[in-house]
Amino acid sequence: MSLNSIFQYFVPKDKKFFPLFEQASTNLIDIANALNEAVNTEDLEQRKLHYKKVKDLEHKGDDITHQIHLELGKNFITPFDREDIHTLASALDDIADYIFDSANRMELYHVDEITEPIKELASLIVEAVTALSKGMYELRNLKNVRSIADACVRVNSVENKADYVYNKAIGDLFLYEKDAIALIKYKEVLATLETATDMCEDVANVLESILVKNA
Amino acid sequence: MSLNSIFQYFVPKDKKFFPLFEQASTNLIDIANALNEAVNTEDLEQRKLHYKKVKDLEHKGDDITHQIHLELGKNFITPFDREDIHTLASALDDIADYIFDSANRMELYHVDEITEPIKELASLIVEAVTALSKGMYELRNLKNVRSIADACVRVNSVENKADYVYNKAIGDLFLYEKDAIALIKYKEVLATLETATDMCEDVANVLESILVKNA
Amino acid sequence: MSLNSIFQYFVPKDKKFFPLFEQASTNLIDIANALNEAVNTEDLEQRKLHYKKVKDLEHKGDDITHQIHLELGKNFITPFDREDIHTLASALDDIADYIFDSANRMELYHVDEITEPIKELASLIVEAVTALSKGMYELRNLKNVRSIADACVRVNSVENKADYVYNKAIGDLFLYEKDAIALIKYKEVLATLETATDMCEDVANVLESILVKNA
Repeated sequence: MSLNSIFQYFVPKDKKFFPLFEQASTNLIDIANALNEAVNTEDLEQRKLHYKKVKDLEHKGDDITHQIHLELGKNFITPFDREDIHTLASALDDIADYIFDSANRMELYHVDEITEPIKELASLIVEAVTALSKGMYELRNLKNVRSIADACVRVNSVENKADYVYNKAIGDLFLYEKDAIALIKYKEVLATLETATDMCEDVANVLESILVKNA
Repeated sequence: MSLNSIFQYFVPKDKKFFPLFEQASTNLIDIANALNEAVNTEDLEQRKLHYKKVKDLEHKGDDITHQIHLELGKNFITPFDREDIHTLASALDDIADYIFDSANRMELYHVDEITEPIKELASLIVEAVTALSKGMYELRNLKNVRSIADACVRVNSVENKADYVYNKAIGDLFLYEKDAIALIKYKEVLATLETATDMCEDVANVLESILVKNA
Repeated sequence: MSLNSIFQYFVPKDKKFFPLFEQASTNLIDIANALNEAVNTEDLEQRKLHYKKVKDLEHKGDDITHQIHLELGKNFITPFDREDIHTLASALDDIADYIFDSANRMELYHVDEITEPIKELASLIVEAVTALSKGMYELRNLKNVRSIADACVRVNSVENKADYVYNKAIGDLFLYEKDAIALIKYKEVLATLETATDMCEDVANVLESILVKNA
């Protein structure tokens, strides 16, 4: 039992960290939805607007992460271990970075034709961050172990599905795509999308370790 | 002198962390051997079985890492600094990840013809994790500084060799390989193999800093 | 207020960490200049010598980082939080790694024709590490908040410029470069250069969080 967990009984309600983590979680759902809408429209002008939204939300996410780190510098007493707060904030930020990076690559590489596996991965990212967000909103009440644990299990299962989609798509690319530049484009976009789901699993792992320490 | 290093005199034998680190080290030797066998067989069916073994061992490694993190959450007193235990566990896990990733890419990219530098790097990875493992098994007895330090020196020397093999192979690829897709395949497989040896060096660095603090 | 910040009033002058951080900062300027000279000479023999200098300075940087980590192991009292010292040292090291990696790729990939965006990014890296270094030299005197904050703002602005140059260059590559192997070469060199400026921004973020905690 750490000093923090002793002190937390005297901090009835954290006014700083939980709201920021909840904002970060909600922002992740927004950014994942923006990406998903981008890959599900055929209208290139519309898609551009969705990409723009992804970028704006990534900046918003950066600001939230930044605020968490600043609060961490100012607060001696935190609702759970400082290191975990730091790791959690960075891990949430990584998800947003990879979602933005996926959109950015599709735009920069001029990936105009969105393939089926890209759509599937974008949809799995929405699933993963939605599950994560449920876990994040339960953090305030660490006694509700079950629902946080459930969220983590769901994230892991989505990540497994994403792995399968990614592996199949990359295997197919190397079997059938004879245009090297097209292969580069799709390979890297798929890899970035899949890494976004890996990052969701990382957050689930951090959540789980916070559970173990504090529950 | 940290609180942990004071307390450790009262913890005659750590029953949790050392056995887990030793399991992780042995698992790394197994996974490196499985990769090495995969690249040294001509029989594609056999190779597939070795790749499968790499994947299974990577999962086993994940479980061990996970257990170390859970123990870290539960134990107030640890045999050395909590942060070092965390960093060491993650760094060992990274080695397994890159070994798996190498095998996975060879399979997904349909790299059927295994070139000489791939075999050399796979063999250097076996050397590196074998040396590392010797250092890891000495962690229980931090007084045996010399043999841990020797292990680290050996890992660094293997990493230098891997660097040389990698640089030569990549230079040759860009000079002689005119098929862009083949170039992509070999370049990325070589990079992943070489990164696995970098990760071994990272572990050696962590070991060394633990030595300095605790010896 | 952490234990360290209480103790620091009794440590009138840190004799270990500040000089090492200053050495690391100066080394970064040297390595960035060496890269910049490499990309601004037409003479391939001269360029090779500059690449060699980049490599030597990267090794020197490794030694400095290593020394900081060793000092961290030996010193109970540090001028600011141990974790921040660790993070700062690693982040500075990452900049040197990416600068070296850029030079190394240009050499290994036989990128003989240096394009305009490569030159622009190399010059922006010099700008970023020069601004960073000013901030680092003010760390001794944490009361001089303004000049550290100014340095961070400048680094962020350079990173934005680098982002713009990178995005434009990658977009152009995918629009106009029809030779897949050339595309791979330039794409990866540009990405590594741009990541070097990202790493400068990471250091600026660490500096800023140290300011918030200690000022």
